[in-house]
Amino acid sequence: MTQPDALRKIAARLRIHSLRMTTRAGSGHPTTCLSMADLAACLFFSEMRYNIGDPEDWGNDEFVLSKGHAAPILWAAYAEAGIIPEEELFDLRKISSRLEGHPTPRMSWVKAATGSLGQGLSVGVGIALGQKLGRSPGRTFVMMGDGECAEGAVWEAAAAAAHLGLPNLVAVVDVNRLGQSDATMLGHDLGTYARRFRAFGWTVHKVNGHDIPAILEVLQKARTSTGPAVILAKTVKGKGVSFLEDLNGWHGKPLKEEELQRALREIGPLPEVDSKKRVRPPKKARRPEGENQFALARTAYADKTATRLAYGIALEKLGRVNDRVVVLDGDVKNSTYAEKFFEAFPARSFQSYIAEQNMVGMGIGLSAKGYIPFIATFAAFLTRAHDQVRMASYSFSNLKLCGSHVGVSIGEDGPSQMGLEDMAIFRPIPGCAVLYPSDAYCAEACVEAAARRPGLCYIRTTRPATPLLYSSSEPFPVGGSKVLRSGDGDAATVVAAGITVFEALKAHDELKKENIGLRVIDAYSVEPLDGETIRRAAAQTGGRVVIAEDHFPAGGLGEAVAACLAGEARIVHLCVRELPRSGKPGELLEACGISASHIVRAVKGLVQR
Amino acid sequence: MTQPDALRKIAARLRIHSLRMTTRAGSGHPTTCLSMADLAACLFFSEMRYNIGDPEDWGNDEFVLSKGHAAPILWAAYAEAGIIPEEELFDLRKISSRLEGHPTPRMSWVKAATGSLGQGLSVGVGIALGQKLGRSPGRTFVMMGDGECAEGAVWEAAAAAAHLGLPNLVAVVDVNRLGQSDATMLGHDLGTYARRFRAFGWTVHKVNGHDIPAILEVLQKARTSTGPAVILAKTVKGKGVSFLEDLNGWHGKPLKEEELQRALREIGPLPEVDSKKRVRPPKKARRPEGENQFALARTAYADKTATRLAYGIALEKLGRVNDRVVVLDGDVKNSTYAEKFFEAFPARSFQSYIAEQNMVGMGIGLSAKGYIPFIATFAAFLTRAHDQVRMASYSFSNLKLCGSHVGVSIGEDGPSQMGLEDMAIFRPIPGCAVLYPSDAYCAEACVEAAARRPGLCYIRTTRPATPLLYSSSEPFPVGGSKVLRSGDGDAATVVAAGITVFEALKAHDELKKENIGLRVIDAYSVEPLDGETIRRAAAQTGGRVVIAEDHFPAGGLGEAVAACLAGEARIVHLCVRELPRSGKPGELLEACGISASHIVRAVKGLVQR
Repeated sequence: MTQPDALRKIAARLRIHSLRMTTRAGSGHPTTCLSMADLAACLFFSEMRYNIGDPEDWGNDEFVLSKGHAAPILWAAYAEAGIIPEEELFDLRKISSRLEGHPTPRMSWVKAATGSLGQGLSVGVGIALGQKLGRSPGRTFVMMGDGECAEGAVWEAAAAAAHLGLPNLVAVVDVNRLGQSDATMLGHDLGTYARRFRAFGWTVHKVNGHDIPAILEVLQKARTSTGPAVILAKTVKGKGVSFLEDLNGWHGKPLKEEELQRALREIGPLPEVDSKKRVRPPKKARRPEGENQFALARTAYADKTATRLAYGIALEKLGRVNDRVVVLDGDVKNSTYAEKFFEAFPARSFQSYIAEQNMVGMGIGLSAKGYIPFIATFAAFLTRAHDQVRMASYSFSNLKLCGSHVGVSIGEDGPSQMGLEDMAIFRPIPGCAVLYPSDAYCAEACVEAAARRPGLCYIRTTRPATPLLYSSSEPFPVGGSKVLRSGDGDAATVVAAGITVFEALKAHDELKKENIGLRVIDAYSVEPLDGETIRRAAAQTGGRVVIAEDHFPAGGLGEAVAACLAGEARIVHLCVRELPRSGKPGELLEACGISASHIVRAVKGLVQR
Repeated sequence: MTQPDALRKIAARLRIHSLRMTTRAGSGHPTTCLSMADLAACLFFSEMRYNIGDPEDWGNDEFVLSKGHAAPILWAAYAEAGIIPEEELFDLRKISSRLEGHPTPRMSWVKAATGSLGQGLSVGVGIALGQKLGRSPGRTFVMMGDGECAEGAVWEAAAAAAHLGLPNLVAVVDVNRLGQSDATMLGHDLGTYARRFRAFGWTVHKVNGHDIPAILEVLQKARTSTGPAVILAKTVKGKGVSFLEDLNGWHGKPLKEEELQRALREIGPLPEVDSKKRVRPPKKARRPEGENQFALARTAYADKTATRLAYGIALEKLGRVNDRVVVLDGDVKNSTYAEKFFEAFPARSFQSYIAEQNMVGMGIGLSAKGYIPFIATFAAFLTRAHDQVRMASYSFSNLKLCGSHVGVSIGEDGPSQMGLEDMAIFRPIPGCAVLYPSDAYCAEACVEAAARRPGLCYIRTTRPATPLLYSSSEPFPVGGSKVLRSGDGDAATVVAAGITVFEALKAHDELKKENIGLRVIDAYSVEPLDGETIRRAAAQTGGRVVIAEDHFPAGGLGEAVAACLAGEARIVHLCVRELPRSGKPGELLEACGISASHIVRAVKGLVQR
């Protein structure tokens, strides 16, 4: 059997799987799978090299399905490769299954969650960069939709890929002309896509996305590209099924059973072909070793120091003991003080320019390859990457984000530069730590704690210099707090963090003159909050608590403490406390603890007290 | 005096003002003002037509300073035009002044706050679209920096402007080569900028940004463009002062007094020229009238209806009575049901494709021209536009945002599609209403309430159909709630919203069988919350409260209620409760209520109870 014949058969199998899976699931996006079936067959069973026994093999090529709604065909491809048992495909979208409606790394071959469009290329840039940095022979393939090319993040990523010089990165755009609700802006105008990618520094190849020999030829050409290459594939949405082809209105619709049978008759019986045998193994490669310590040398500070400066100093020291640490900047490194790392470790420092979305997206990719990205910008500008931060959480990324210049304490630059909603971005994310140091020693400890702790972590730093409160040996565990002033007869507790700690200390001194004792707590760990200490303090100080924070009212320290103390006021708060997953609505309401049965249980619990 | 001679003198005056203002303020960005001074002189005193007596004149050309850190030269230009008294320039960045560090509409000629880079072009697209829609002869000029062209939002806007066909839109890029911390990615490579803008459908003009006759010539050419035109101006950062020109390290630095004197000696004395006389008045034009009602005809629903569907139905009915309402979609109009408005009012419907940042940015521009934009997408994807939403608040925009498909109740599509942090985006914004209807009647009322209420408003809608709870005549004031079940001996209160209201009602029925009374509150107005009703219910039900919401733990209904009930637990929450503004750190801590003196007062208040 010739290679194109085999690939045609594999493509037919992928189409059949995708149609059956979505009909069985009762939801999903079959027609977008059909348009990319021939491309997927060529990629997974001819072009890409990977070790089906080990998704972490350092020699593997990597694949990012940026058009995440085509998940069924991704699972189908892994089934054909022998990675997923074929019968498991029918578990698509079940609550117990790793085969979710949009890809997440619950399935171990998925390196980043997708489904929010226009993010995959940034992730691919990060992965390709990680491969380059770690001398992997692997390449990175990103399958994109045409509709998502309207997202600006795509062009941020395109510019970065060309600037970074990544010949190991190949993007494939499945130009099937149709979006969700209507035709895309550019339809089948491949010329305009080509001009755009060329203007952003890419080598462009155009191809009929259903002509397998032609696809193989452009993939071959892309191997010798001197920079990133994009394959613009003209395709037909619903390809292979006459009553689906090129028609609007079929975007998120599975076929009914009768329609499925009609479609399957058109495609013909499941062709016989041993797809597994067509998978090319990777070149041998070993993940680079190197320093992987976290205990960074602490600084002895002489005087007032901005926490943002201490962040930069600590980051540079962390870089000395940990080779996995990489740093990304959005052209504010002289303000966040990431410049200290840039100067010391230029090979592990990446200038992302003023493009925060791509900066975080690249971080997701670097994290997927085992690096520990530290990413800093003004806290206000992390709002720009909120969607990428959100998707980083579903990607289980090991990202460390730092927002500097928080709150009104930045002064004259005005509201557009003040991070006043940043804690409300990070606090809702399950498992994300939110650290808010008040002095330079605490800031250094937060950098170390963030690096040690797997997963997302956010550090909030302040612009002005602040006095020294602690010493270089003071421990600052995640989830802790510091009681800075305490007396037997304290009349109230103040909970503060960052800049307001100093305001609280001043208040303490003022009140002391009038013989009013004030307990002062530095809640440097806003999430998780040291509820035990705060509740004890509240109880010991007559239930009188003041919170002071440099942040908008909602979503920050104030509500964190209010929620923590509401226990005293007998509040039960039911809500989604873990990352949710695919499942039926009723099942999810139940699993996430917000269904009628949970409410019944909570009420009974209260009544029985 | 020839026109170029006069403009050269005006440019010198703008440079001198910018240098003096920033030195006096002790902070700011003078060198980025110097690079655009010649361009600004040509725009404000030769090309643009505006009525210096009325910033709302419907014939005015509009100006957006996308590179908002160049605010000093904007204020200087308005002073030269006679709009701001010259002596007021020295109030720059004072807490009492409308002349902030980055432009905000506190100064009435500013139509949108800028300072988060890469947003101005979208705003300009929206303004130009508003001019076109309202048959204004005015044109829109957007002054951009080169560094901010790295932002993807710029390319979303560029694509939209070309697609919408806006010959009344002119962008000027001040290509001064230097960003904040380093050179930009493209430096002075105007050719690449040109290729990019051309690939996105723009007419491109290149010019030496310090050659006034050449600038006038390209501005003249741009008048006859058939679509949007961009002027790529090669400039020198710090132009006019030898020790600042083209040097890194001067980005956010004012000159010291001695340096200022040296700079002023180089530029020469303030040239004499009557700038005011050079301002061209606008063509006569009248703002279009039309229906401006809010009372939309209500629907009689027969059965279970999704709130997202009711949103779409109500929007179409609102469109019938209000011509100022315009609707934007991000290619999900068949899911949000904005398609109903699109079908009925195509001229007031704008397809933004999958580009949420530009969608919200355009909304800011349309709002600035007096329209009432309703913008809907999946709630999850509003995270993509968080920065634009934030800037909309500082722009005092009259935007109505709707996030559909919230929470785990969407089911199988999985976490990337679930809006679980959307309330935490909107609740922190001072003055922003957050409405969360549980049934179709409430959803219709929320659409009307959002339209009536000036300012930002967020409506959260649910994917599955939900039962009818209310009637078409039920009032739903912003800030209200509905007590759905209430009895004398109620043992507890449950506060719910949206989908969980129905879970709460089921719980009520279950508990009733065991003679346990449950008070059920539908908190459809999450922000502002009906604290009075909730506190009363808590007090009447033994202080036992359950909250159930389909949202992550932080920043949503749970913490809103916790914060509201914490009053019972004697909590005082100090935080920034109003939009802050430029000022010194100490002043701002004081003005925003989070300084030592406020803490002292709060503690005393508690102690004296």
